[in-house]
Amino acid sequence: MKRTLNVGLLGCGTVGSGVAERLLQAHDRDVAAFSLRGVLVRDVRKTRRPQAVMAHVTTDAMDVIRDSRTDVIVECMGGLEPAYDLVKEAIACGKHVVSANKALIATHGPELIAFAGDRGVELLFDAAVGGAIPALSVLRSALAGEEILEISGILNGTTNYILVAMESGCEFGAALESARAHGYAELDPANDLNGTDTAQKLSLLAHAAFERWLPWQSIARTGIEAIDRRQVRDARAGGGALRLVATLKGNRTRLEAAVEPVVVPLADPMAAATGAQNVVRVIGRGCGTLTLIGPGAGREQTASAIVGDLVAVSRL
Amino acid sequence: MKRTLNVGLLGCGTVGSGVAERLLQAHDRDVAAFSLRGVLVRDVRKTRRPQAVMAHVTTDAMDVIRDSRTDVIVECMGGLEPAYDLVKEAIACGKHVVSANKALIATHGPELIAFAGDRGVELLFDAAVGGAIPALSVLRSALAGEEILEISGILNGTTNYILVAMESGCEFGAALESARAHGYAELDPANDLNGTDTAQKLSLLAHAAFERWLPWQSIARTGIEAIDRRQVRDARAGGGALRLVATLKGNRTRLEAAVEPVVVPLADPMAAATGAQNVVRVIGRGCGTLTLIGPGAGREQTASAIVGDLVAVSRL
Repeated sequence: MKRTLNVGLLGCGTVGSGVAERLLQAHDRDVAAFSLRGVLVRDVRKTRRPQAVMAHVTTDAMDVIRDSRTDVIVECMGGLEPAYDLVKEAIACGKHVVSANKALIATHGPELIAFAGDRGVELLFDAAVGGAIPALSVLRSALAGEEILEISGILNGTTNYILVAMESGCEFGAALESARAHGYAELDPANDLNGTDTAQKLSLLAHAAFERWLPWQSIARTGIEAIDRRQVRDARAGGGALRLVATLKGNRTRLEAAVEPVVVPLADPMAAATGAQNVVRVIGRGCGTLTLIGPGAGREQTASAIVGDLVAVSRL
Repeated sequence: MKRTLNVGLLGCGTVGSGVAERLLQAHDRDVAAFSLRGVLVRDVRKTRRPQAVMAHVTTDAMDVIRDSRTDVIVECMGGLEPAYDLVKEAIACGKHVVSANKALIATHGPELIAFAGDRGVELLFDAAVGGAIPALSVLRSALAGEEILEISGILNGTTNYILVAMESGCEFGAALESARAHGYAELDPANDLNGTDTAQKLSLLAHAAFERWLPWQSIARTGIEAIDRRQVRDARAGGGALRLVATLKGNRTRLEAAVEPVVVPLADPMAAATGAQNVVRVIGRGCGTLTLIGPGAGREQTASAIVGDLVAVSRL
């Protein structure tokens, strides 16, 4: 018989509703049965998809977190507050936590992970890096015995969408507008454009690959705000493609990290990454070069990564 | 303190000696300590690299398998016999088994996995598909909750090396000779060229993705023996590349599988796979399209995948 995992959900926006929908739709390959308990929302009267989620909504976070039957809390609120306080409260209550919130983990990860360790619960956040690409999971499992030499990648879909659009002849401003129109860019895209989002994801990769916390603020970052169409065209003319690339090299004691626009060869899968696709490349002493490509964002894709973490919790 | 995993090794050829070398060289990121116990070889007097392995060699398989201190047996012999009998004996003795032997698992997998289940031990074989690409591991862990719709890939390095060499103008025979000279092709490359090796790997992927055993003999296969330079050139002229592609589509009850030469678009990472690189593409309902690229063979690369399985065993 499958184990039933009781899930409380904090936030029911794009990602949260994707998680709710997935948990309410069991399928053949499910290794655990999921039961959706409370769902924290701002407005209980709002009509939500899926309809079945309406039976679980509440505006009281403690209703969700302190529910004694709940095994795991999924945090899909984004932002630092109140997510930070609520995740701490969930851990204090002995719940496992799954989060898609890279800003939260990149900022408070060391404290939250140590606290989870003290309370004997898991804090997993595979969805926070690379969307559906199982980068953190692979570093934690298949490559757990591998000596990692280098990690690089395209970790931000918004900037990648803009750079690819500029290759088609768009000016920066028009490309940004197009990214907004397609739902890739937020209303305030500053943290995407200036490399903050990428640096936060790189910080999480550094922890998984080198067991070292690298504060994202310490990572040298150059964004794409100053890139013009000529630079994009020159890169193409030179047989390459301009991409916002994150790089991590070294070992636990000496680690170099950077986020910057780089011209990559056209034969490199990073050059072929279109739209919101992300790429994570891992170079290890034994495994050689492994490249993972996949959707870096999206409702169902992020929900898929969260469910992957829930399955890991169900196997504990 | 790290747990010590006691390992017995069956076979010390290219892959086996790579595993021995890796186990004898601990590094910072090791999550388990490995202790190499017996190593089954044909000739105890042969000089071996690494030197330290010489202290452990024996020609008596039972010495290795029945050693009461050994937790896990790594099978690197290849072939069906005596590998099959020895793996069964290891499981009967209550040892976990890690194998890189795709022919063994594709042929006797259902029986061996059921037997391991009965005895409460693990039988892992991540190295048997895609070399260092953690394809089976990802399907088993990060994508364990994902509804898989399709898997495709380039799973054989020898044929890929030959097709890429033919793109550079080589005739089939010369390309095969070159593959031999570079150590990619075996003396009798028939199972590579006719698609058997690819079909066996596809069978293991079908089990991991759809929980269904698809006998490799039942998979429709067309090899590359009849491919000539003109077909390779025509594919290029048409904006594509000819590759030996394995495909799996459907669900547990209705599964279509094929191995055949296919023209893939140049923008597809499968077209960019050079030499012995493998590509595994997974399409899931939630995760979308994930593409994994990496070395499909090689001494250190295969050893890396085996160590990944050993780490999984150490965490049980």
